[in-house]
Amino acid sequence: MKRHSSSGQLSRRSFLTTVGLVSATAAAGVTTACASGEAGTDGSADQQGADRPDPVVPFDGPHQAGIATPVQAHNTTVAFTLRDGVGPKEVRRLLNIWTSDARRMCSGEPVLADLEPELSSDPGRLTVTCGFGRGLFTAAGVADRAPRWLGPLPAFSTDRLDPRWGERDLVIQVCGDDRTTVSHALRILVRGGADYARPSWTQTGFLDVPVGPDGEPGTPRNLFGFKDGTVNPRTETDFDEQVWIDEAEASHPAHVGGTCMVIRRVAFDMPLWESADRTTREVSMGRTITEGAPLTGRAEFDEPDLAAIGDDGLPVIDAHAHIALAGVHDGDTRQRMLRRAYNYDLPVTAARADGLQDADLVALADTGLIFTCFQTDPRTSFIPVQRRLADGDRLNEWISHVGSAVFFIPPGTAEGEYWGEKLLG
Amino acid sequence: MKRHSSSGQLSRRSFLTTVGLVSATAAAGVTTACASGEAGTDGSADQQGADRPDPVVPFDGPHQAGIATPVQAHNTTVAFTLRDGVGPKEVRRLLNIWTSDARRMCSGEPVLADLEPELSSDPGRLTVTCGFGRGLFTAAGVADRAPRWLGPLPAFSTDRLDPRWGERDLVIQVCGDDRTTVSHALRILVRGGADYARPSWTQTGFLDVPVGPDGEPGTPRNLFGFKDGTVNPRTETDFDEQVWIDEAEASHPAHVGGTCMVIRRVAFDMPLWESADRTTREVSMGRTITEGAPLTGRAEFDEPDLAAIGDDGLPVIDAHAHIALAGVHDGDTRQRMLRRAYNYDLPVTAARADGLQDADLVALADTGLIFTCFQTDPRTSFIPVQRRLADGDRLNEWISHVGSAVFFIPPGTAEGEYWGEKLLG
Repeated sequence: MKRHSSSGQLSRRSFLTTVGLVSATAAAGVTTACASGEAGTDGSADQQGADRPDPVVPFDGPHQAGIATPVQAHNTTVAFTLRDGVGPKEVRRLLNIWTSDARRMCSGEPVLADLEPELSSDPGRLTVTCGFGRGLFTAAGVADRAPRWLGPLPAFSTDRLDPRWGERDLVIQVCGDDRTTVSHALRILVRGGADYARPSWTQTGFLDVPVGPDGEPGTPRNLFGFKDGTVNPRTETDFDEQVWIDEAEASHPAHVGGTCMVIRRVAFDMPLWESADRTTREVSMGRTITEGAPLTGRAEFDEPDLAAIGDDGLPVIDAHAHIALAGVHDGDTRQRMLRRAYNYDLPVTAARADGLQDADLVALADTGLIFTCFQTDPRTSFIPVQRRLADGDRLNEWISHVGSAVFFIPPGTAEGEYWGEKLLG
Repeated sequence: MKRHSSSGQLSRRSFLTTVGLVSATAAAGVTTACASGEAGTDGSADQQGADRPDPVVPFDGPHQAGIATPVQAHNTTVAFTLRDGVGPKEVRRLLNIWTSDARRMCSGEPVLADLEPELSSDPGRLTVTCGFGRGLFTAAGVADRAPRWLGPLPAFSTDRLDPRWGERDLVIQVCGDDRTTVSHALRILVRGGADYARPSWTQTGFLDVPVGPDGEPGTPRNLFGFKDGTVNPRTETDFDEQVWIDEAEASHPAHVGGTCMVIRRVAFDMPLWESADRTTREVSMGRTITEGAPLTGRAEFDEPDLAAIGDDGLPVIDAHAHIALAGVHDGDTRQRMLRRAYNYDLPVTAARADGLQDADLVALADTGLIFTCFQTDPRTSFIPVQRRLADGDRLNEWISHVGSAVFFIPPGTAEGEYWGEKLLG
């Protein structure tokens, strides 16, 4: 990824202006609109070149960045466990340090006492998004303020969960187009919080956003070859309905503007997938591979017609196709959500590879999807959808959910405020 | 990384024309010139937009691609072990399959029977570079044709080598700007060669090439924050002298145009490094961090003056500074080489992280450098240089060489030819 050298352009910009700008010019896959109207504009968009995205995604705003932000090339998400003895005071201190450091780095300013400012001088659309597990609320002495849905999801019939990818007290999602900056930011945060929390798991993923002949970004593909993210929310209204918690949905006023983050680690059985022909793959997904169109349509964004019957008298989109089960059922539009998934493809240790014999193609297939999604309430979105998928999705032949964690994402910050300040204060 | 949608532009181009074009327009850090004059031009450069690099790096030519090619954003290098019973016939069959598949993918054409052509339709400057270990020559029945220097390097005083990153029979280096394409290409190759060779280790790295205010690419940084690759060869003459084996250097005529690849895995002790101040870091390297200038100069490409004495009566560049030892000594210019190193920063497994206590910052520091270098003969370049570094480099306080492997890279191919055909034929 190119790094955009841009020291003269790193003034903080308003949330609204810049998001609009970035979505127009960036290699953006998932979404565009997002900001509510709370932030003003400062007119600085005029200073931007038209040919490359603004390297700064505004940190402060009504919602945290890294959610409605058009997807960046890299995502490293780290879950933390609070250290023994960390109580209300230390939790607030930790969040204060982290928010302050993240705000500076996302703006292209080095953190205080950073000895490697060169590694954060160009943020490359860096975003840092912080989420709370139930343990955070307990340690902070406000267990009663946790959203009711916060905690482990119910078991699904196909789960093969490994607790090493499971629930933790805190999570930090770091995304950006510059991998070096992402690595550096993460080390700063880990170091800055070291007295209070230790990293417990790390998930690292990537996306390659295609650019169409018209210069517009397209939907990136996962490692099965399918476009991933076609049905995502795109307008501000979509986001308000599907992602951001509003007054009616909040069990505490300081939840408003926040969201629920579910991180499922989904392992792909690549050797088995590669033995399936294209028809099998497309029938299993319910979409074509090349265009990503529903089998009842021709273009990616055509609405699937689940009732359509083919010449053979059978449904064109099989009832157990992935999209037949993953979409809204029974008209319950609360089942929609924002998918912000990243591919992973990890080197396999020699120890593992050398132990394998006939099945050793697997040695290069620690491969899959970090399926991160955001929604107002998992009980009405991820859970019913995943229950249908676990029970019937044809893709289950090739995928396994091996990790599951849920976090509350507090709303965005005003300048100087720390993550969750209104909730914990 | 943006994917360049480009199906209309994927005709194969001449080696000379395209390399010049790519070096002028790409986000290229290491080098520019490289082609010998053997390839002609087809005039197709005119069809290229000036604002983005040609997504195709020509596969055929006097030298393999992926060496003089300006560095791409991603590098995954896999070493293979030949299966029991693989003899001369099977080795040739394997190389035939691999060369043919690599040639097609690097040209943006799917391989035969590829079920995921979407994942390779845009090569994103994909290169595939193949190297031979001594075991390959033996299995092929031509053990006497191996370069004399091929095999394990002598032990260095600071080595902490783990055999899991060690010598193997074969290596494939896959580089590209599109991570999805790199993953896909690698799987195709592993699958295609599965009857003959199994992957034994995998090293995955990244680089972020900065773009200066003038739009020109700069030198990427490693995770210590230093620019890495400043002293690399840049002109055709440099490459001929430092990298490509010529008639005088070859112990077999079919070595000509090839090179020696050394892959050292260098682990960085990030927590310890982060406890060192900037002065200590710069003195240890002999260069400034911000500019990458030698301490006796002001700009990155200023020649270091190792004899300069400061006001305090001491050398400005310490005799044990990295650059004081890594450069040419005693006027022996054979000690120069091409460095094509990539950063690595791997997630640490929960098992490892959870086992750590006080020292658990290490939990996010499976970090370092895949130091790959190319030279005509390691006995006159890497070995004497590394001996000096092992014995005296101040940076040894923070780095450990944990892996070491040497491969012979056969010369480039003519159309239809397989890697090493003249050598093994």
